[in-house]
Amino acid sequence: MTSPILDKVLGFAEQQREQFEADLAELLRIPSISADSKFQGDIRRAADWLVGHFGDLGLQVELIETAGHPIVYAESPPVPGAPVALVYGHYDVQPPDPLDLWISPPFEPTVRDGNMYARGATDDKGQMLTHVKSVQAWLATEKRLPLQIKFLIEGEEEVGSEHLEGFLKENAEKLACDCVVVSDTSQFARGVPAITYGLRGIAYYEIRLTGPNRDLHSGVFGGAVTNPANALSKILAALIDDKGRIQVPGFYDEVIPLTEAERAEFRSLPFDEVAFRKDLEVEALTGEEGFSTLERRWGRPSLDVNGIWGGYQGEGEKTVLPGKAAAKFSFRLVPGQDPEKITTNLRAMLDRLLPPGIKMELVESHRAPGIVFPFGSETMQAAADAIEQGFGHRPVFIREGGSIPIVSTFAEVLRAEVLLLGWGQNDDNLHSPNEKFSLADFHHGIAASAALWERLATVQ
Amino acid sequence: MTSPILDKVLGFAEQQREQFEADLAELLRIPSISADSKFQGDIRRAADWLVGHFGDLGLQVELIETAGHPIVYAESPPVPGAPVALVYGHYDVQPPDPLDLWISPPFEPTVRDGNMYARGATDDKGQMLTHVKSVQAWLATEKRLPLQIKFLIEGEEEVGSEHLEGFLKENAEKLACDCVVVSDTSQFARGVPAITYGLRGIAYYEIRLTGPNRDLHSGVFGGAVTNPANALSKILAALIDDKGRIQVPGFYDEVIPLTEAERAEFRSLPFDEVAFRKDLEVEALTGEEGFSTLERRWGRPSLDVNGIWGGYQGEGEKTVLPGKAAAKFSFRLVPGQDPEKITTNLRAMLDRLLPPGIKMELVESHRAPGIVFPFGSETMQAAADAIEQGFGHRPVFIREGGSIPIVSTFAEVLRAEVLLLGWGQNDDNLHSPNEKFSLADFHHGIAASAALWERLATVQ
Repeated sequence: MTSPILDKVLGFAEQQREQFEADLAELLRIPSISADSKFQGDIRRAADWLVGHFGDLGLQVELIETAGHPIVYAESPPVPGAPVALVYGHYDVQPPDPLDLWISPPFEPTVRDGNMYARGATDDKGQMLTHVKSVQAWLATEKRLPLQIKFLIEGEEEVGSEHLEGFLKENAEKLACDCVVVSDTSQFARGVPAITYGLRGIAYYEIRLTGPNRDLHSGVFGGAVTNPANALSKILAALIDDKGRIQVPGFYDEVIPLTEAERAEFRSLPFDEVAFRKDLEVEALTGEEGFSTLERRWGRPSLDVNGIWGGYQGEGEKTVLPGKAAAKFSFRLVPGQDPEKITTNLRAMLDRLLPPGIKMELVESHRAPGIVFPFGSETMQAAADAIEQGFGHRPVFIREGGSIPIVSTFAEVLRAEVLLLGWGQNDDNLHSPNEKFSLADFHHGIAASAALWERLATVQ
Repeated sequence: MTSPILDKVLGFAEQQREQFEADLAELLRIPSISADSKFQGDIRRAADWLVGHFGDLGLQVELIETAGHPIVYAESPPVPGAPVALVYGHYDVQPPDPLDLWISPPFEPTVRDGNMYARGATDDKGQMLTHVKSVQAWLATEKRLPLQIKFLIEGEEEVGSEHLEGFLKENAEKLACDCVVVSDTSQFARGVPAITYGLRGIAYYEIRLTGPNRDLHSGVFGGAVTNPANALSKILAALIDDKGRIQVPGFYDEVIPLTEAERAEFRSLPFDEVAFRKDLEVEALTGEEGFSTLERRWGRPSLDVNGIWGGYQGEGEKTVLPGKAAAKFSFRLVPGQDPEKITTNLRAMLDRLLPPGIKMELVESHRAPGIVFPFGSETMQAAADAIEQGFGHRPVFIREGGSIPIVSTFAEVLRAEVLLLGWGQNDDNLHSPNEKFSLADFHHGIAASAALWERLATVQ
């Protein structure tokens, strides 16, 4: 499957293993913590390090100021007739607390058992750097890339990417591309690399109910005054039936159903449901009738009460009929569903459900549609081939139950297919003490990335 | 309706108005706050004041030590052929905080607009003293009482009457009586005195649900793992239907229904439902279908969620599938219902409602049956006649939606009918700053009490 050109590129990368690891360690030594202003100098040092690195490769590079932390942008020359790939990543990291749980200090990269331990090792310096190193290998051996590559590396991912959407919108032309490559997630399991081709969306609400103007004695008033905590239970219970079907009118009307090919792909995955259940220490799993656990998590909408409160929460008892009760709840949405329409229908339903004597306020706080890229598209197949080459295993196609807001933004603003190619492992401890990245995954990622450029170049 | 003897007794009370008010003021000046050990000396001063007072009347009196504050017990000689009445009251008072809201200091009794303002004025020194003063009037004019009267005045009512039940049980013979007279509540409205002949009971629970062993990301797990906050809403909602009927099996089986006479009595009351609703600032009242607001509050069972919590309650949003959720809820019970049987049936129902993947703990924390004394019994009619004489208005018969645990204890331990004869007003600010007692109500109460002894003496 491999080409003589790619063989040379991969050979170079193989020779440079130690140097590439040394470069990664150098970047990991910079405590570029975006959440803490004390580290503002280090944020800039990390950005400058990247600028220098891209410059050394001969790419055209810019340090772009934002109202927050700077963006590093680099690009190779256009390749007529070939597509354009945009690599997105981030050079900022999570705070390392609690420090006392780290076996080796978070900013002194240390190799143990084939893993490099450091804050940012997998999230996202190590994964991001695989694409920089693959470009380095191509340029060192071939002096050219088979397609144009643009790098957009931001410094605010761990604090909400506040300035990225605006930057994308203002620079859509400069950033124009055919696909976006993001390596900031994980493989499905050890030895099972994965391409994530879909994400669920979200519609998040807070419902606030007010009954009487004060807390009342439940003996004196109970049974005659509508209790907002009783009402809240009724309303939340009515939103979903015992078969896990959400009862908001029209909720499923535009759901794009999972295809038989997708369901077959999920069924083929080495997912150990018993181990999953035992890890959570629950005796059974429940969800929408007629769907498997993976289908429920990835491809079907859901409703969760995220928080609920009202009345007396202390020790012992208080015979109170509370004046107020409230809850936060959210729907996970799948592609096809329109959060705006769902909110409209939800409001109408809640108005009908609201019992007399209760006033309601519904605050909508966050919404994002679900997103899915064509399952098994030509681009995805190219990526699958490249990963098989780099990791020695053909990747599986999976979805993710959560949202990655920036992915929707890329899809919307740049109208590009997004390839979520996770090189990490589920136990890499991202956002936790002892974050690590397997050096094998680092080098496999570089090889897969190098192969990806060649494969993508042929996709029309 | 009045007798020559009673005329003399009432005439004496009329002459002694100023002295009786002065005696009340003297007792009110003692800050007998039972909740605060700094006032232990004052508690004892108040008890001693009563001992002295009962002694001056020629009653046989004892100061009885308990593990807490002492009980004052006094009794007049037995009257062969006549029944025995036990007066229950308390000499301890609530703490007066917040002090800065008092117009005159809480322990400097001050008369304004015909009311005596002081902590304890209505709750319970003023009301309790009406029965002491009526006995004084009888003894001053007739040298005898028409029936035997026993006084049981405790010092721990405001801190839960911890030692009273044991004392009652150990001294049931000494305290033996035909009826218990308690003046520690309110009239139905201004100019509408009332006899409270029934109280609701209670069964109070805390339900704790545990799902996964930790809070989960609602994107990654939502829809596949049973959410305990969702489950809690479902369970609480299932306990009561939209017509306000509690769904625990057998819940209504032993309910003693309101009689047509009781319902007619409630309908006749000057209850302003619009004012009631407006005071609570609710647009409508709800409750069990087929019953009025007063019937719902006094004579029908109810279910209130008293507190509920789980997941994220802070600002903004957190996409969490909580590991735990819990609620406190309670049934108000009416006479006939057995709290123990209800708990058994509730547990069976909750076990059926519990969805797979959730563990439940149900903690029962407080239970008391409802209680009702025979509506319009001979004793009640005697009390109604006496109140009509003392207040110039015939009292109405009402119930109370809350529980007064000590009343059930009297009924159970002494097997006596309890007369709840409230002399206070609903705006007397008990437990609040500027507590007061109308001097008119004080003197009317003394007259009603004096008449009560004569009337009760004739009840067989």
